Amino acid sequence: MTTGEPPPGPMRRGFGTERLEAFSDGVFAIAITLLVLDIALPANAASHLLHSLGQLWPTYLAYVASFSTIGATWLGHNAITEYLERVDPAFLRINLLLLLVVAFLPFPTKLFADYIDNTTLERIAATFYGVTLLLASTLLLVLWRYAVRKQLVRPDTDDEEIQLLTQRLTPGLGGYLVLIAAGLFQPIIAVIGYLAVAVYYIVPSRHLTTRIRRRLHRSRST
Amino acid sequence: MTTGEPPPGPMRRGFGTERLEAFSDGVFAIAITLLVLDIALPANAASHLLHSLGQLWPTYLAYVASFSTIGATWLGHNAITEYLERVDPAFLRINLLLLLVVAFLPFPTKLFADYIDNTTLERIAATFYGVTLLLASTLLLVLWRYAVRKQLVRPDTDDEEIQLLTQRLTPGLGGYLVLIAAGLFQPIIAVIGYLAVAVYYIVPSRHLTTRIRRRLHRSRST
Amino acid sequence: MTTGEPPPGPMRRGFGTERLEAFSDGVFAIAITLLVLDIALPANAASHLLHSLGQLWPTYLAYVASFSTIGATWLGHNAITEYLERVDPAFLRINLLLLLVVAFLPFPTKLFADYIDNTTLERIAATFYGVTLLLASTLLLVLWRYAVRKQLVRPDTDDEEIQLLTQRLTPGLGGYLVLIAAGLFQPIIAVIGYLAVAVYYIVPSRHLTTRIRRRLHRSRST
Amino acid sequence: MTTGEPPPGPMRRGFGTERLEAFSDGVFAIAITLLVLDIALPANAASHLLHSLGQLWPTYLAYVASFSTIGATWLGHNAITEYLERVDPAFLRINLLLLLVVAFLPFPTKLFADYIDNTTLERIAATFYGVTLLLASTLLLVLWRYAVRKQLVRPDTDDEEIQLLTQRLTPGLGGYLVLIAAGLFQPIIAVIGYLAVAVYYIVPSRHLTTRIRRRLHRSRST
Repeated sequence: MTTGEPPPGPMRRGFGTERLEAFSDGVFAIAITLLVLDIALPANAASHLLHSLGQLWPTYLAYVASFSTIGATWLGHNAITEYLERVDPAFLRINLLLLLVVAFLPFPTKLFADYIDNTTLERIAATFYGVTLLLASTLLLVLWRYAVRKQLVRPDTDDEEIQLLTQRLTPGLGGYLVLIAAGLFQPIIAVIGYLAVAVYYIVPSRHLTTRIRRRLHRSRST
Repeated sequence: MTTGEPPPGPMRRGFGTERLEAFSDGVFAIAITLLVLDIALPANAASHLLHSLGQLWPTYLAYVASFSTIGATWLGHNAITEYLERVDPAFLRINLLLLLVVAFLPFPTKLFADYIDNTTLERIAATFYGVTLLLASTLLLVLWRYAVRKQLVRPDTDDEEIQLLTQRLTPGLGGYLVLIAAGLFQPIIAVIGYLAVAVYYIVPSRHLTTRIRRRLHRSRST
Repeated sequence: MTTGEPPPGPMRRGFGTERLEAFSDGVFAIAITLLVLDIALPANAASHLLHSLGQLWPTYLAYVASFSTIGATWLGHNAITEYLERVDPAFLRINLLLLLVVAFLPFPTKLFADYIDNTTLERIAATFYGVTLLLASTLLLVLWRYAVRKQLVRPDTDDEEIQLLTQRLTPGLGGYLVLIAAGLFQPIIAVIGYLAVAVYYIVPSRHLTTRIRRRLHRSRST
Repeated sequence: MTTGEPPPGPMRRGFGTERLEAFSDGVFAIAITLLVLDIALPANAASHLLHSLGQLWPTYLAYVASFSTIGATWLGHNAITEYLERVDPAFLRINLLLLLVVAFLPFPTKLFADYIDNTTLERIAATFYGVTLLLASTLLLVLWRYAVRKQLVRPDTDDEEIQLLTQRLTPGLGGYLVLIAAGLFQPIIAVIGYLAVAVYYIVPSRHLTTRIRRRLHRSRST
């Protein structure tokens, strides 16, 4: 250790990669788990619990949509770090910005759940919610593009793989813009849309999966 | 992977195994710790604290039952990943679904604790609580069965070990169904039952333990 | 790494050691951070904020005492796992029980902080608080004793080291019993005492430190 | 493992380094994510949501300032552990003290956000907030200086690198003192200042970055 040999490989893929992952996993895990605190019954729920539980369905919907979005973002983040060779200080900062938005998500979720039965407020809340999702999605793409541009990805990653992940991370942006507009008229539809976008991200891409599988075989047979 | 070559370095047992474990550990740890926020004294507790603390026993019971259930699920999850050679994208998604239910558990726990002194509501809350537990338990089994079917388990795992873990994860399902029915009549009994199921999962299986111990000796003596 | 040797030891020191540590670290970290949620100003604080902040000192005291106790327990847990060769299923269960108590600690902390200006309730709260601390402390000792008895510690640990850690973990128990009794008459004094016990645990033992340092030198110079 | 060979290097850079990092990452991640719980709409928000959301801007400001400060502290902590060869028991304790302050930060953040529209209280809250930030900043510097003085840093770290990180961690202290004074007259300006200090810390230092990059190249080409 003190004799000057290079730091052992698995622990030093770059500057702070392990702690970047540990810290990010922490924030993702906490934000996704805090969402449940937003689910609360109205004060007069006691008198008709079953009805109240039933009435809560938009809250459940927002819970599942936010959970899926954070889950999808985590999966995307996971895919990015899987390709990373190292990180640089600016990457750490963009990552912090992404985490800022992810950690903020429980607030618009709560807002939407709170004002679900008020037509005007519901629209504002759904818009606010959509903008936050759009931001998170954009930052994830920025993070990946930055990593590619600064050549932080593993040198054995071929261009096709990079393009596939870029394509995978991109389309949501347009979807979110459409849904934010839709939310001004039909908030519930917009939230169902947000859930659909998240599920689209979550459902495994056959192309990318095949790539990653092949890649693992390759690296394993070396 | 199934051809017998050794898994590449400590960092690449598959696609994102480390982050899967880190993220899951995070969600389990947070959900289990958030449960305490559900324990609150009624507003008029100040005038008779000792009595109020005593009255809280169903809340403590629900706390211990939920804590034990999340603990048992974590132990089961731990056992599954212990046998895992690698994960595939679909495995990550089923795992997300399991975490969704685990992270949701503080809500029905709170519900049960809140309505413990109202006969009707208590029954509904206990049923809701039981259904959530059943879901978590089912998803854990699905996760394991999927891993076995897709041959994600380590190639040196023999069939008997697989069967033992499957058996270990299965019986709770029937138990939960019975208890959900019981909860419609005797909610407290049901929650005691849920605690019993969790404890049953937590108490180490002698068979499985022996297996795992043997297995570790084998791998250590290689 | 890619030359075909079997998975390296550090990843398989036993059954689930890494996840045991990750999960425990998660629960400790969350419980210690949730404590801050218990600090809240009374509703009428706005009219005399400075006074209210000053009045909060028992709350700060309880915050620091609980933080220190969880910190001390984490340090003790850390010392135990440092000596661990492997864990067995029963160890995992005792550990879960310890985490149950650690995760519960924010509740008695809140109770004490809430009833600080009511002589009778303060006493009950302080007692409840002390019993929880005693439980946590006892379970930590049980965990260590179990590890020693079942020979889960590294074979190169000599008896003196084991005895030193045992001695280190033991004396608090008596202290807690005395303080629980004291808390019935002088709650604030008791909480100051709990803080003192935690600080005693936190201040590094010269003997143990020297041992561990020697041990590290030994292992590094091999 | 049982044959007496020394524990493998990457897992034993010292006493508990991995768990120190894991536990610290946990506390940082939780504190940074709990901040969102402080953002709440006033009770009468429903009648004019858009206005209320707009009025919340000091809350958002405090959220971003606290998030950035915790983020900056995490980055500093990260840089310190990057240079660490090992830790000693006293280092673990100073680290606990730092985490105590970091975990406490959500409280003054909430205080500032709550009293933003009351001239007098706002000043007190901003001062309290500033003192907490100053404490966190100071403790981070103390942690680093302690590590340097006790020679816990990797032996291949040259003096210039040490000085650069020291310089990097120092200037904020003066800035905080000035801002705490300013906060007595212009609380909002002070909080904008706190945000600026955090952003200054977050924006990568070109000098330090170059160093670290060179260092990584060196270690990788060995």
